[in-house]
Amino acid sequence: MSTAAASGVRDAAYQGSPGAYSEEAAWALLGPEATLLPCASLRHVFAAVAGGLARHAVVPVENSLAGVVPDALDLLLAQDRPVVGETLGRIDHVLIASHGTALGDVRRVLSHPVALAQCTSFFDRHPAIEPVPVFDTAGAVALVLRDAERRTAAIASRRAATVHGAAVLLDAVQDHDANWTRFLLLGPAAAAPSPPVASRKAMLAFRLSHVPGALWRALEPFARRGLSVTRIESRPIHGEPFEYLFFADVLAERPGEALEAACHDLARVARWTRVLGIFAAPTPRESTTYKND
Amino acid sequence: MSTAAASGVRDAAYQGSPGAYSEEAAWALLGPEATLLPCASLRHVFAAVAGGLARHAVVPVENSLAGVVPDALDLLLAQDRPVVGETLGRIDHVLIASHGTALGDVRRVLSHPVALAQCTSFFDRHPAIEPVPVFDTAGAVALVLRDAERRTAAIASRRAATVHGAAVLLDAVQDHDANWTRFLLLGPAAAAPSPPVASRKAMLAFRLSHVPGALWRALEPFARRGLSVTRIESRPIHGEPFEYLFFADVLAERPGEALEAACHDLARVARWTRVLGIFAAPTPRESTTYKND
Repeated sequence: MSTAAASGVRDAAYQGSPGAYSEEAAWALLGPEATLLPCASLRHVFAAVAGGLARHAVVPVENSLAGVVPDALDLLLAQDRPVVGETLGRIDHVLIASHGTALGDVRRVLSHPVALAQCTSFFDRHPAIEPVPVFDTAGAVALVLRDAERRTAAIASRRAATVHGAAVLLDAVQDHDANWTRFLLLGPAAAAPSPPVASRKAMLAFRLSHVPGALWRALEPFARRGLSVTRIESRPIHGEPFEYLFFADVLAERPGEALEAACHDLARVARWTRVLGIFAAPTPRESTTYKND
Repeated sequence: MSTAAASGVRDAAYQGSPGAYSEEAAWALLGPEATLLPCASLRHVFAAVAGGLARHAVVPVENSLAGVVPDALDLLLAQDRPVVGETLGRIDHVLIASHGTALGDVRRVLSHPVALAQCTSFFDRHPAIEPVPVFDTAGAVALVLRDAERRTAAIASRRAATVHGAAVLLDAVQDHDANWTRFLLLGPAAAAPSPPVASRKAMLAFRLSHVPGALWRALEPFARRGLSVTRIESRPIHGEPFEYLFFADVLAERPGEALEAACHDLARVARWTRVLGIFAAPTPRESTTYKND
């Protein structure tokens, strides 16, 4: 990775600021030496890769409490880099403020809307505290440190508190302990693992004709080959009301070419198909490498 | 509806404040005389219905640009009122400020995060203007009117500007002209239409075993009966990482009991099934009754 750093091209672009969950996911995917480019939005992440500022993009697509990350799938489709890997990162939210701030002083709590939505019971227990949406969890910590009156706090990771030199007021403020986000790696494929992995995943987008049973027929090539649809989602097509694309993730748990063959069959029955990527799929247990500090 | 009003029970609860898109959807679903209860969040909407403050809930579930409304499906499942109808409301965003504010003075634009995401090209054209997420489009207009310096504007409907006595600075600020939201009506069923409608829709939630081909087998009862899956989505189950529910909408375009029979078959192959509602389905043309005056 040192060549990339020397040429000014970073290894990966991510959304957020230092201390963000996406930053740690990037290190989990590319190794702790990877050089990273923080970006203000997912749109900027993809623009950074398209413009040659970074080799890879690291993109959250799904959270276990909030579901799909709005926009991520649409933006994935609007660019041409393949998905080459994924990781599941554990999300542990804490309440963060300036050193010396007491919980009783806090009147506003800033965080990403998805993070605020994951902490509803905290706000139910503290009705005097107002949740305030901002664009980024770690960025919320930076904003909180500028409040001279010490009336605001942020919801972000423990690591974000450390990075910004802030204090942790409360641990485990999320509604459910089991909270994770799935991050994709886009860009040049990593070196092939050795020995070859047994489990591989395909991410597909496809469009079907409006006839009864169309989705059932589209899934048949996968079912017949013993492949599992692990996730499927309809997304409205921008500018074409009442028209949908399907996004599906399909898992092959045995070595072979079944995924490629099924995608080929799908392309024959669908109006339009795009394989967003086929890559080695970590099992859930393997990929929860994500830690708060 | 006058009985309900007299007893203090409103006809419907909706998220937002007067002038919100949901308010107009409620009138489209229940008629212009319906008495409405504005609520701060979807959670409060369902609580209002459960607590007897309102007979129906009006809930946005899907937007043609932003996709699914986060939380709405999960909240739908956490309560017990059936879905009894739906409407598709056209969304036309305008830029709103106090009378006398010039576009050149505006430094911040407030709106719901989903509405901000629908207006990215506006922010690209005006890089000096910062988008600021708040919880509600019409509520953003009320906030803007409190800014004595006239540096803020809001993105909301033209009707929200009228309701709050504010000025429209710019028309059609959204990225795509074709922008609509699908709203569900929950609560007691409306009187059966006469003559009986031909098109009906079922909204289902189900959970499948982790075996290859499980989704394909679950859809077979619908395909075999000539029913169309118009939308499908995987949602992670809270507190159970890597476990998903499927939410599906199925359309029957001919009279008969095919929907009920297929749901019955699904219940035999699924680990768990819930029919969220079966109701008369307006065609897209019929249901775009939603106007910005």
